[in-house]
Amino acid sequence: MIKGVLFDWGGVLHDDNGPIAGAASCLQQLSSQNIPWRIISNTTSKPPQYLLDKLDDMGVQADATQILTPITASQFWLRQQARRNPVEPIALFVADSARSSFQALSLLAPQAEKGARTVIIGDLAEGWNYQQINRALRLLTQQPTPHFIALGATRYWQAADGLRIDVGPIAAALEYASGIKPITLGKPSPAFFALALAQLGVSKEHVLIVGDDIESDIHGAQQCGLQTALVRTGKFQATDLQKPPAPDVVLDSVADLSDWLDAAH
Amino acid sequence: MIKGVLFDWGGVLHDDNGPIAGAASCLQQLSSQNIPWRIISNTTSKPPQYLLDKLDDMGVQADATQILTPITASQFWLRQQARRNPVEPIALFVADSARSSFQALSLLAPQAEKGARTVIIGDLAEGWNYQQINRALRLLTQQPTPHFIALGATRYWQAADGLRIDVGPIAAALEYASGIKPITLGKPSPAFFALALAQLGVSKEHVLIVGDDIESDIHGAQQCGLQTALVRTGKFQATDLQKPPAPDVVLDSVADLSDWLDAAH
Repeated sequence: MIKGVLFDWGGVLHDDNGPIAGAASCLQQLSSQNIPWRIISNTTSKPPQYLLDKLDDMGVQADATQILTPITASQFWLRQQARRNPVEPIALFVADSARSSFQALSLLAPQAEKGARTVIIGDLAEGWNYQQINRALRLLTQQPTPHFIALGATRYWQAADGLRIDVGPIAAALEYASGIKPITLGKPSPAFFALALAQLGVSKEHVLIVGDDIESDIHGAQQCGLQTALVRTGKFQATDLQKPPAPDVVLDSVADLSDWLDAAH
Repeated sequence: MIKGVLFDWGGVLHDDNGPIAGAASCLQQLSSQNIPWRIISNTTSKPPQYLLDKLDDMGVQADATQILTPITASQFWLRQQARRNPVEPIALFVADSARSSFQALSLLAPQAEKGARTVIIGDLAEGWNYQQINRALRLLTQQPTPHFIALGATRYWQAADGLRIDVGPIAAALEYASGIKPITLGKPSPAFFALALAQLGVSKEHVLIVGDDIESDIHGAQQCGLQTALVRTGKFQATDLQKPPAPDVVLDSVADLSDWLDAAH
């Protein structure tokens, strides 16, 4: 019995050409059946409002609590944690586009090298240099040991001129240097899926994730005990099904989800 | 039966105040007994000639083949490897002070992003930025996969203004990003000890390492099957002996080595 659904965004609900056919009616039908859903995406370059605007264009009403990215997840995590431990001031190593999402929190001064209760590492891109990596290390190695959050574990991305490192390698460097393991908020991290489940308010055995990425969406969610649907859109490749474990269901696209849910019930 | 000896340099043979008392006569006595010895040090900021000059000041005759650092080890490793596989051109990410040691080899142009058969990562310090890390990643992810050498695994060092990352974290970032595990040449890497044994020409069970660092010198060498002597000079602390495994012998200083060797024979 599926009581809540997590959707990947890119390649599942939307791609470079616009919405995936049937995506809007799928979301609308879930809402009309009072089945809660969330969008769970690894993007840190777009604020949640960007996805809300796209949904609005599709005729889907949603609010910011329905979008879970490493950035929104980190804010949810900080609120949870703040009930037990101080989390501020926060040292932010993120791109300017992500910085505004944290403006309600008490942030450490941009060049400060001490006093952080939380260190958040994102994709600083050109901003990463020897001085900034050292600053993150110095903040992490002070007492009391601050919380250490990595906004994802992505290894690199393909720019026009070649590969560029993403947040994962910098988090790996700082983990190696400091000896402190980061809490990774981004698929396929268990901490990220756990936050999505907490936001959904449904226990894991009743939650389905719908994704196009066999590793990050499907295998990652299986590790956390979720049910899984792989769609044949986006980055799906036939070879994705060649090695176990298989998803619970493979759908041609998100358009087939409602029928499958009805049949499964 | 000890047939060859490896010495750590700093804190064992020499410290900030000059030579450790008895160090010169210890080395001279080994030479007179035809027991080969090598100095095995993790420094990459000083060329081997620096240590040779210091030894000369101490009245000890030595040549460059007796100094094994990550830099000299990488050159020995490259010569070994070149018999089977092309190793040039080499992409060097090292400080200027180390660059001259590689001048006999065919080096990739400083900004080139393809064509390396070997990528060598050292302590580039201020030279590390987003562009240089991306360049290393791009070189590592081309076909054929280049050799990947890290000149040590040190996490950081203490500068006047705080901690600064060393080669280890950058190597960890590039390993995470590329999926390629580097060959680490520096204590306590097994590949580094293996090169030291090959240079010494003595089988491991007959080799003694003399060091002041319980982790890097003693435990690292034990993993490789060497005999081990911990000296109570340099960075030695009484707490070093609180957890196993213990070294084969603990000496007040290198000055006691000859007597111990004579007694052991």
